[in-house]
Amino acid sequence: MSPTSSRPNTRITRLADRASYDRETAYAILDAALIAHLAVVVDGAPVVMPYVCARAGDELVLHGSTRAGILSAIAQGAPVSVAVTHVDGLVLARSAFHSSMNYRSVVIHGRARAVDDLAEKAQLLEAIADHLTPGRRAVTRGMSDGELQATQVLAIALDTFSAKIRTGGPIEPPEDRDPNVWAGVIPLALTFGPAEADPTTPAHLAPPERRPAND
Amino acid sequence: MSPTSSRPNTRITRLADRASYDRETAYAILDAALIAHLAVVVDGAPVVMPYVCARAGDELVLHGSTRAGILSAIAQGAPVSVAVTHVDGLVLARSAFHSSMNYRSVVIHGRARAVDDLAEKAQLLEAIADHLTPGRRAVTRGMSDGELQATQVLAIALDTFSAKIRTGGPIEPPEDRDPNVWAGVIPLALTFGPAEADPTTPAHLAPPERRPAND
Repeated sequence: MSPTSSRPNTRITRLADRASYDRETAYAILDAALIAHLAVVVDGAPVVMPYVCARAGDELVLHGSTRAGILSAIAQGAPVSVAVTHVDGLVLARSAFHSSMNYRSVVIHGRARAVDDLAEKAQLLEAIADHLTPGRRAVTRGMSDGELQATQVLAIALDTFSAKIRTGGPIEPPEDRDPNVWAGVIPLALTFGPAEADPTTPAHLAPPERRPAND
Repeated sequence: MSPTSSRPNTRITRLADRASYDRETAYAILDAALIAHLAVVVDGAPVVMPYVCARAGDELVLHGSTRAGILSAIAQGAPVSVAVTHVDGLVLARSAFHSSMNYRSVVIHGRARAVDDLAEKAQLLEAIADHLTPGRRAVTRGMSDGELQATQVLAIALDTFSAKIRTGGPIEPPEDRDPNVWAGVIPLALTFGPAEADPTTPAHLAPPERRPAND
């Protein structure tokens, strides 16, 4: 999150505190994500946009319409950067400088593989649907060939990535501890509300099982 | 979010449905945001990272350590793209193809202005702290000159931007309406949990007033 309070003493301290290159850690962060922010260079300038995402093995899978120009450029092998971020809390010190956020993030660098095989495309799109709503693929109808052809599916190998995590309370010098100012953490989480059935959904049907987001 | 279901019939339909260039709409989305994803080009490849953000007038303000190389490049005028996204719900149709997400997003393109004046820097950093926790600037100590000098503050003019919003239930053809499958929306919101006081915070102090995130 690169907040002011990221202990800007030394580069080593910053890295040691919050960076991790552990694959298991990064995968857990990706698996808790509903969306990723994907950046690509277009005419020399960056473009960043949000996409639904899901990890499938050692790749992160995104999709969109084949009519979206940005995805065509990516499908043709342009380098990409993808960030997944969970905001876990506001960290309130007694100074703005030492205040921070708790978060988990992964940044990936690489090039995307365009998935052209319709069977693999269908499998990955169902994996995304199932990631968002576990078990969903068992009850929805399959994708038609026309739908598959209208959908661009991109898979980015998880070869080059870094994870950063901040947890815990504020870190500040003892002289900052003004006894009249509250300090601590206000947790944040992406939370589900009560399901809202479509008017065409029969009343006796229960909403699907769903995962806690941002867990 | 460019989901499969973004009605890929025509470009005009897609834009008419979800794109908005209305400043008030975009500002409301930015004002509900705690973080933004900032992309820049480094050695020809994109790099995207999350930053705490706050709008100040007609600029979006980000900050980080002056030791972060990526911010130095941006401070020197490299083009940037910034995305702010709120995930508002899973939209479950009876097919993966017509399933979607409700969301609000703003994508900004431009170049950042490096804020060098210490007084303006202090003002903008306090604006960020106050955005995250309203009223906070009245109780925290001010920033020292050393802290201000260690902090890179960037302001990006809100000149070129677009907002996209999806709301409502699934849109799918009548023949998809399998009476055995639940369809509808599962709302999502970034929600605060109970405040956790730092061990050094006196027990009689109440946590600060706080805003609902993602509202």
